[in-house]
Amino acid sequence: MDLQLPMTAAALAQRFNGRLVGDGHREVCAVSALEHAGAGDLAFYQQKRFSETVRDLKDAVLLTTEELLVANEALTFVLVSNPQRIFGEVAATFNWYPRGDQRVDPLAKVEASAQVSPDVSVGAFSYVGNGSRIGKGTRILPHCYIGDDVQIGEDCIVFPRVVLNARVSIGNRVHIFSGTVVGSDGFGFLPTEAGLRAVPQIGTVEICDDVRIGANCTIDRATLGATRIGPGTKIDNLVHVGHNCQIGSHCILCAGTGLAGSVILEDEVILGGQVGLGDHVRVGRGAQIGSQGGTTTNLKGNQTYWGTPAVPVKESLSTFRFMKKLPDIWRRLARLESRLGEEPT
Amino acid sequence: MDLQLPMTAAALAQRFNGRLVGDGHREVCAVSALEHAGAGDLAFYQQKRFSETVRDLKDAVLLTTEELLVANEALTFVLVSNPQRIFGEVAATFNWYPRGDQRVDPLAKVEASAQVSPDVSVGAFSYVGNGSRIGKGTRILPHCYIGDDVQIGEDCIVFPRVVLNARVSIGNRVHIFSGTVVGSDGFGFLPTEAGLRAVPQIGTVEICDDVRIGANCTIDRATLGATRIGPGTKIDNLVHVGHNCQIGSHCILCAGTGLAGSVILEDEVILGGQVGLGDHVRVGRGAQIGSQGGTTTNLKGNQTYWGTPAVPVKESLSTFRFMKKLPDIWRRLARLESRLGEEPT
Amino acid sequence: MDLQLPMTAAALAQRFNGRLVGDGHREVCAVSALEHAGAGDLAFYQQKRFSETVRDLKDAVLLTTEELLVANEALTFVLVSNPQRIFGEVAATFNWYPRGDQRVDPLAKVEASAQVSPDVSVGAFSYVGNGSRIGKGTRILPHCYIGDDVQIGEDCIVFPRVVLNARVSIGNRVHIFSGTVVGSDGFGFLPTEAGLRAVPQIGTVEICDDVRIGANCTIDRATLGATRIGPGTKIDNLVHVGHNCQIGSHCILCAGTGLAGSVILEDEVILGGQVGLGDHVRVGRGAQIGSQGGTTTNLKGNQTYWGTPAVPVKESLSTFRFMKKLPDIWRRLARLESRLGEEPT
Repeated sequence: MDLQLPMTAAALAQRFNGRLVGDGHREVCAVSALEHAGAGDLAFYQQKRFSETVRDLKDAVLLTTEELLVANEALTFVLVSNPQRIFGEVAATFNWYPRGDQRVDPLAKVEASAQVSPDVSVGAFSYVGNGSRIGKGTRILPHCYIGDDVQIGEDCIVFPRVVLNARVSIGNRVHIFSGTVVGSDGFGFLPTEAGLRAVPQIGTVEICDDVRIGANCTIDRATLGATRIGPGTKIDNLVHVGHNCQIGSHCILCAGTGLAGSVILEDEVILGGQVGLGDHVRVGRGAQIGSQGGTTTNLKGNQTYWGTPAVPVKESLSTFRFMKKLPDIWRRLARLESRLGEEPT
Repeated sequence: MDLQLPMTAAALAQRFNGRLVGDGHREVCAVSALEHAGAGDLAFYQQKRFSETVRDLKDAVLLTTEELLVANEALTFVLVSNPQRIFGEVAATFNWYPRGDQRVDPLAKVEASAQVSPDVSVGAFSYVGNGSRIGKGTRILPHCYIGDDVQIGEDCIVFPRVVLNARVSIGNRVHIFSGTVVGSDGFGFLPTEAGLRAVPQIGTVEICDDVRIGANCTIDRATLGATRIGPGTKIDNLVHVGHNCQIGSHCILCAGTGLAGSVILEDEVILGGQVGLGDHVRVGRGAQIGSQGGTTTNLKGNQTYWGTPAVPVKESLSTFRFMKKLPDIWRRLARLESRLGEEPT
Repeated sequence: MDLQLPMTAAALAQRFNGRLVGDGHREVCAVSALEHAGAGDLAFYQQKRFSETVRDLKDAVLLTTEELLVANEALTFVLVSNPQRIFGEVAATFNWYPRGDQRVDPLAKVEASAQVSPDVSVGAFSYVGNGSRIGKGTRILPHCYIGDDVQIGEDCIVFPRVVLNARVSIGNRVHIFSGTVVGSDGFGFLPTEAGLRAVPQIGTVEICDDVRIGANCTIDRATLGATRIGPGTKIDNLVHVGHNCQIGSHCILCAGTGLAGSVILEDEVILGGQVGLGDHVRVGRGAQIGSQGGTTTNLKGNQTYWGTPAVPVKESLSTFRFMKKLPDIWRRLARLESRLGEEPT
């Protein structure tokens, strides 16, 4: 089942049910971007606009489709229906993820009442608190802090230096990259005579199956109940998710984006980089917000928005176009006034 | 003094000098948001608009005021003057904060000349440098790095994986959440023939009593003197405070906000999320800046601002309204021109 | 060669080839901002507008130029051609950087096949993976995670709690501040029937000589090839650099800025705080983008830009000026219409 490089172009074609065109003995040792592909490299070619690039290459093995096959005898082709996906499978053999030791490192500290499945990895200098449970196949890499009563499912990767605070719950096949903090206090205060006083944040965070959270993010726990990130949602780096947010399934949140408290994203919402959403905003299914956009009001689904405040992108582009014409508007207005003898007061 | 759940509604009423209405034997085991409250739960009801919700509930114990008492025999009420505050006190018994062991963990490293009060907790894999002093009742949780000559007051909580670099000073009852870095270098360079050369950042950071700093923030040390965060100020996640900033007391900085160097916030300033303030900007007492706002010029106190550049919110809302009318303005201007036989050049 | 305080003003003048004016026996024990300078302090005075401040000082030693010499007998002056740079050299003796022990701390874990030069420091609770190489004079401070096959040059400082993931490459004299994560996965997905599937990110990160990266940044590895940060570039805190970005030499990126994937910054580009650049954007040599600016299109070099979308700053300032006049435009347009008997439809 496992792919092992080097392998010949012929073996690759057989493995992925592709058609071989060219020298089947050519060996694949590495993967490469199309423009840098040379001897020993596998690359993929899936868009016609790169045909010139392909014509200039030699010695490489190329994954492409029947339709895109190019006459270049210096190349070997493996014709498949989805070149990029097959390329991804081969590329994955070069994955950098630390494999873990499938044991608790002697330099880790796991509290007595934690339940760690036998094949779990807990890396050096990692801490696992009382009452926490870690499912089979999961890798806790070095320097992680897992508080008390944390639930982690199966086949997760918790990269070095992640904090999962007490009571948070993580599904299966979740990847959390370095520096991310899950389950820190939400940001809520009551004014008192003695200054601001924190509202106790005693809820939790629930991260569903197949979620991916990038590096240095912060996902705050709910005041009551749970901040929730739905199945399959992918979050980039340096993203903030406030307390009680409810993020649907298969959403995409790009780097630097921030969600205040109790934001609701329905399924398949896409937020560009550095987007900001105010408290209690609801964004409808399939909506997209362009980078640096922001809103404090609800947005309907299946539309693309941009700007602060975010409006449908057609509208905001039109506004930007007209804003450039303001000097012109000003001049023309003054001309009309002067012609009509108006005082421009 | 300490609250211990479960307790009966009657005991709760007595404890907080409230009036009991309904079944005093009913037990409170947990706290809940109003809409989910059921058997064993305590919830609070403080706003009339939720009266419908209250009518539909049963089995729960509700904290509310005399004025808001609702006829619902399926509920037990405890009538107090400030339901939310009392609720907070009960909720706090479910606090997730790691308690610490009131000792130095055998897996921590504390340098010989550090002075750690007897009841201080220093968690596993935490480091405390030479000459540092930690006041009584303070918890340094696992994975923290406390550099040399750091001062930390009493009853602080330094959550897992905080960095407090050399010489910074932390007051009493300060909470610093995971991933935050205090006392890293300010960002200042001099151009030289050999490229940019760092200006030595040899000042420090002074964090006053009752400050709260969220997760993954960066508070840079001053070039000379001290970056200062005044008493009672609350900072959310992923906030950047540049070198030499002077933040007053009881300010609120929401997530993703960034202050360049030498910014001055007077007392009680509130900054929304993703706000950006340029070098040397001064913001007057009680001013508020809406999310994603930005300015490079000073702002007077006791006003609300929005936009980039930030202007009084009334003004910016008016501008936004007129921006939407730009297509209309354009059309009407052209019509006038055409009527007057003007060429729209 | 090393500077040792305290030293007399006379010794200081001799050391830096300066001219002494005043009492050469006066001792310098510390450095100070000009306005706070007193007995025992060294300060510098390089801009005429602070002459009033200088007139009021006493007891301090001042670095200034021949041209700026002020008549103040209570001060001692050392006249040099570049006061700020000399001041910086003296200030650097107060540097807070942890010195390291020039050895592997017994509480660190260095894998067997890592190659660590004899004088390298590896701090407590730091981890160094298999096949990694660390050049002489480099300090790996506590709590760092260095993955497998990482290359680190000479005389680097890797501050506490940095993550350098597998295979990344760091040049000489590089400073990386706490909390920064280098070589995490780029953010790229393919839609499949089973939801979004991560594109393998198997490239690396190359950080060149004399680069400085602030705290809590994220520098993602390339999909293929390398994300690259050119020599001498300086990066502030909380900056995100996406996969495959190519950053030139001597660039400056201020706090909170985010670069999506495959962004190209030519040399000497300056980005203000919270700037956002979209996928594949190219910014020309010497271009500057003001804080909170953003663009998804290429920008030519040697110009200053501002706004979202970013335009030449002159243009954006003009637009902002006219935006403030919109209410006025509206009113005047309506007046013309009414005078001409137009219906304002």
